[in-house]
Parts: sequence; structure tokens; C-alpha cells
Amino acid sequence: MELLNDEYYMNLALQLAEGPAGQTGINPAVGCVVVKDGRIVGMGAHLQRGTPHAEVHALNMAGASAEGSTVYVTLEPCSHHGRTPPCSDRLIHEKVQRVVVACTDPNPLVAGTGIAKLRSHGIEVEVGLLEMRALRLNEMFNKYIATKLPFVTLKTASTLDGKIAAKTGDSKWITGESARAYVHTLRHRHQGIMVGVETVLQDNPQLTTRLPVPALQPIRIVVDSRLRIPLTAQVVTDRTADTIVLTTELADERKSVQLEEAGVSVIRCGAGPQVDLAEAMRLLGEREIGSILLEGGGRLNGAMLTQGLIDKIILFFAPKIIGGADAPGNFRFEGIERMEQAFVLERLELQQFDSDICISGYPRCGNEVPK
Amino acid sequence: MELLNDEYYMNLALQLAEGPAGQTGINPAVGCVVVKDGRIVGMGAHLQRGTPHAEVHALNMAGASAEGSTVYVTLEPCSHHGRTPPCSDRLIHEKVQRVVVACTDPNPLVAGTGIAKLRSHGIEVEVGLLEMRALRLNEMFNKYIATKLPFVTLKTASTLDGKIAAKTGDSKWITGESARAYVHTLRHRHQGIMVGVETVLQDNPQLTTRLPVPALQPIRIVVDSRLRIPLTAQVVTDRTADTIVLTTELADERKSVQLEEAGVSVIRCGAGPQVDLAEAMRLLGEREIGSILLEGGGRLNGAMLTQGLIDKIILFFAPKIIGGADAPGNFRFEGIERMEQAFVLERLELQQFDSDICISGYPRCGNEVPK
Repeated sequence: MELLNDEYYMNLALQLAEGPAGQTGINPAVGCVVVKDGRIVGMGAHLQRGTPHAEVHALNMAGASAEGSTVYVTLEPCSHHGRTPPCSDRLIHEKVQRVVVACTDPNPLVAGTGIAKLRSHGIEVEVGLLEMRALRLNEMFNKYIATKLPFVTLKTASTLDGKIAAKTGDSKWITGESARAYVHTLRHRHQGIMVGVETVLQDNPQLTTRLPVPALQPIRIVVDSRLRIPLTAQVVTDRTADTIVLTTELADERKSVQLEEAGVSVIRCGAGPQVDLAEAMRLLGEREIGSILLEGGGRLNGAMLTQGLIDKIILFFAPKIIGGADAPGNFRFEGIERMEQAFVLERLELQQFDSDICISGYPRCGNEVPK
Repeated sequence: MELLNDEYYMNLALQLAEGPAGQTGINPAVGCVVVKDGRIVGMGAHLQRGTPHAEVHALNMAGASAEGSTVYVTLEPCSHHGRTPPCSDRLIHEKVQRVVVACTDPNPLVAGTGIAKLRSHGIEVEVGLLEMRALRLNEMFNKYIATKLPFVTLKTASTLDGKIAAKTGDSKWITGESARAYVHTLRHRHQGIMVGVETVLQDNPQLTTRLPVPALQPIRIVVDSRLRIPLTAQVVTDRTADTIVLTTELADERKSVQLEEAGVSVIRCGAGPQVDLAEAMRLLGEREIGSILLEGGGRLNGAMLTQGLIDKIILFFAPKIIGGADAPGNFRFEGIERMEQAFVLERLELQQFDSDICISGYPRCGNEVPK
């Protein structure tokens, strides 16, 4: 639809925000469009933490035209002094006439304060246009800002019988090129990539983002209770990205020092024998890692899922059947007893990547009350 | 598109054929439309084996208008005396002017003979309009008529981790109502429903077609090498549909007699200890069972797949994850060693049934050359 109305401009603001998604780290992706007398006079997006907000870029572009304009912004303008001055002050200063906001600040402590400030200065404010899309765009930020815990996206690629490798361990390749390229796009959009040490021992992956254009390199995170990771593993020797190894108080001190000397951060999460995954998420959040792409294996997937630490699940299915009772599955855990206890994916989405199928959704435990 | 052209009328003929799909048994579903001077004057479909062909119904409706008409028919008119006289003779007798055919007779021995006969009598014949759709409509018939073996559709319903039940055996329900209703539609469209005896022992299913309208009841087929089926099983006691038990020469004669006395047919396929599944397909084909819906369990699915006896696979996935190493999987077999040996589904189709996902396709073994 190409009807010129508020939605038209908000849609444009959302497009501006979506482009740089992932590159704002623990800051939200925000877009802004300034319209005056039937003409777009300013457009902006937030690009990186510590740099100007979307409104500032758009108002700079608008210059003197900002006075009396309507400003479309995908997130409530901030009212507090952070790394940059408050955007609500700038909007008041520029004497804009009307502000249309897609969604309020997800931080409950400040939600509504930016809007209230604008209104107290006589600016007309409307809230909620294309709100669901704006909330979804920043689903990772929204969780992190409210909980200081990373948003975890679990990604697997399996056959139609749920296997992530043949019984021999062969897993090259389950899915086709197009699905694998999308996984690199997902890596670009997360701040961390997490795997279990079994995956490192089995496949020795590089865990970097490889795309036909330069891409961001998330921190590599290996869950390794007993520090079995070899010093020769690619995630240790390849310095394209930083690496964190999550272990326990029981882990060998000498191996820990060797890893640190090789440039790897070792974080002890709990007394052991297993890595305390909830504690690990808290410590990674403290380090301002706001989003993690969990890439298996099956055992770590199962542990994270059953401990309620997964926010989103993206399952790639290759149209293949490979069998093998011992072939590893995409989720390995003790297992539920009655079907109504199943972990259920909600808000399902289906996509096709060549002949591979991608099913994504948000998990809810069968014992939880639907939200 | 509502352009009035040959495709318009052939589309209508295909719709006529598709409605009664499944009720023609080992006969093909065929539709026919007769058009004269810009007006539809006759429509017909083949409804049941031993009753008139689609052309006959349509020409009867057309009456005297058939002379000089164009006849659209989804399958080459027959030229041989079967249970009914040859349709090509009838078309010649009615002095139709032109015949448009979607696809030739799939039986290589007679393919083209009906068309040749029409042409030899001066009737203009065109072949191949909407051919792929016509071939697909009769994919079951096409296999049976050429091989005398039943077309086997494997159907499973599993979780996203490939489980068909929880580790406790609980499987009520994996998928939702809408997917389950579709399975009953699939049953209606096949001549046989096949399961392994493990499924009978575990779930004691009725294996009948239950729909809000009266439906056909396919023959129930149980694969049971050692005749472990209880005489109290619903597939034995419930007489809504006939039941065949496939077993081996090793099976207990006394139990066999008891089953026969209860109205069940017992067929011995091979010397044992396992049922010779390829031989079983041959014997079922001999009994004019041209299509079978295979409904598991995992072990029978695996055996049929690895022996190359599956023509089509329909996988329902519920958006659930349930875990459990011992929870039964949708395909249980020895398993391949290298990914390129995988069984691959081709011509994939995706459908959603409420929150369940349906993936269907045609299996090809990784070792086979693509057709």
C-alpha cells in the first residue's frame, strides 16, 4: 500500500531502523523520519552505541525545517542524560509540532517520561503506531534492558528425523548454502555465539561470521565444565574474534592460565561439576553481552531449554532422513513424561531457504501459563 | 485467472476429477468437460471402478450437442474393452470435432493408442495441457498400473526433535485437531492403512476413517512377524473395516487360525524371521490394493524407507520439543554414515494446519541418481 499517511512514514522509520539491526549492540535499533509541509526533510537511524540517536541525525538533516514538523520515531525519545544528551530536549528545542512514536521505552523505570516531557512543552504526541513491529525489532534489547540478561536465540540445523549429524559424526553438510549463509547473518546480528565444548572437540569450528560483505564478529563463548578445549582449537588460535570459555570452580588452574595466555577469557560459573548456566548468563550480561546465538550441540541446547534460558528458537530442517539411534539429536535432555509438559513454540514463522525449511518461534514450557 | 481458453476448461475437468479422488480405488480419477459453441454442454467424472468413465457421463449429458464439440479430458480416452466399452469409440461415434487431453495413459503398453484411434478418424487431438497436475492427481494409479505394486505414502506426526511419543509412550496428542482431521482425509484416499504390530500393542488404535461426513474405510494392514497381535485388539474386534495381518512362514499356525476365525486375513510373506516387506507389497498388489498409507511406528517406517518401498512422505511437525533419549523417533533404522547417503525428499511442499507444520515430498536415496 502506498497511501501517504502516518503509517507510511512510520514504516519508513522502521526500515531505517531495521537496516543496522545487530550493529547497535546493547543499544536499540531506532529510526526517525521528519516531515514538514508534505515533504520528508530529515531521516536518521541509530548506528552504534555512543554515537548520536536517530532523532539527532534526522533533526540535523532537517535543520531549520524541523520547526513545526512532524517527527516519526520508532522508539520513545529518551529523557535522560546517557552517553548523549536527551532527545526529548532536542525535539523541544527544535520546536517540532507533533511526534508519532511506535513504542514506549521498554525500561519500565523510564517508560513514558520522554513522552510526558514532550507533552508538557505543548508538543502533540501519539503512541503505538506499528507498535508490534517496533517491539519485535528490538526483542533482544527489550529483554536485556529489563533484566540485564542476554537474549538467547537457539539455532539448530537437523534432518527431518531430528539428527544434527550421522552416527559417524559426519555433519557436512546438513543444510544447503543458502541456509548456512543466513546463519552467518544471524551471527552478525548477535553479540555472542555460544557452543558446548563437545562441538569444539567434534567439529573444531571457527565460529566467525563469514559473509560476502564485511561483518561483525561476535564474541565466541564455549561452555566447558572441565576445560577440555584444546589450545590448538580454532576458537583459541584464530584471533578474528574474542573467545570466552565458561567453566566451573573445579576447572584446572594451569589450563585456565594457558588459555588466558592464549588470549582467551576464562569465566568460572558456579562450584561445578556442571557450568551454572543461569549464573553464566548473568555474568555475560554484566559484560554487556546482550544477545547470544546458541549453536548447540544437542546436550547444551537441552540444558539451556530446560533451564528456561532460551528466548527464541530457529530450527533449520534439511529435507533428509538419515536414521541411526546413536546419531546425535538436536535436543538432548531427560525428556518430559506427558505430552502436555512439552516445550511449545509460539508465534511460529515458516521460511524456505532453497530446499531447507526454517521454523522459528518462542518457547514456552508446557507447565507455564500462556502469556 | 478467468481467461476463457483451453486451460480454463481443462482446469474445470481437473476439478471434476479431483473431487472423487480416492474413491476410484485402483482406477484413475478422471474428469471431462464437453464444450460446444462457447457453452459447456457436458461434464463428467469417473466415480467408481466398474461404473462409466468420465467421457461417458459427460457425453450422456451433452446428448446431441456432442457432435462437433470440443472434449477436454484429463486422461487419454481408453481404446480397449475393459469393464466398460472403449471411450475412444464413443467419441468417434458422437462425431466430436476436437479432443484435448492432459496426459497419456500411464500404462506404457497402451499409451497413445486411444489418441491414435481418434486421429485415424479425423478427430483433432492435442495432448499435454496441464499435464503435470494431471499426472500428480493420479500418482498412485500411475505407479500401480505400471508395476502392480501399491503406492505407499508414509505419514508421521512428530515433535521438532523427531519424537513420536514421550519416553513414557504418551503420544496423545502430538499434533492438533486440524492435522489429525487431515490424516483421516488421507485415510479416505488410500486403499490400505498399514502399521507395525508395536503400534497396535502400544496404542491399540482403531485405524478407521473418522470424519464429519461418511468416509471410505481402507483395509487395515498390520505387519506382525510373530503374530503378537492380541485377539482383543480393536483392529481385530472392530469390524468397521477389513484387516490383513502380514506375517512369515514361522508364525504360529494356531494363532493364525484364531485370527482367521475372527475375520482377519493372515498373509505369510517370506520365510522369516522378519516379514519380507517387498514380497508383502507384491502380494497386496495382487489383491488390488493400489495405495497404502503407512502410519508407523518408527521401526517399520525405517525398514520400508531403507528398502525403497516408500513413494511419498508426509511429515507433520507439532511445534513442540520433548526430549528423552529413549522417546521413540519417527524413523528408526541402522542409519547412514556419510551425509551424502541421506534419503532426500524432493518436490517439497509446505502446509500449515493451525500451529502444526506439514512437510511432504518424494524420497530419493542419496545413492540414487536424481531422475
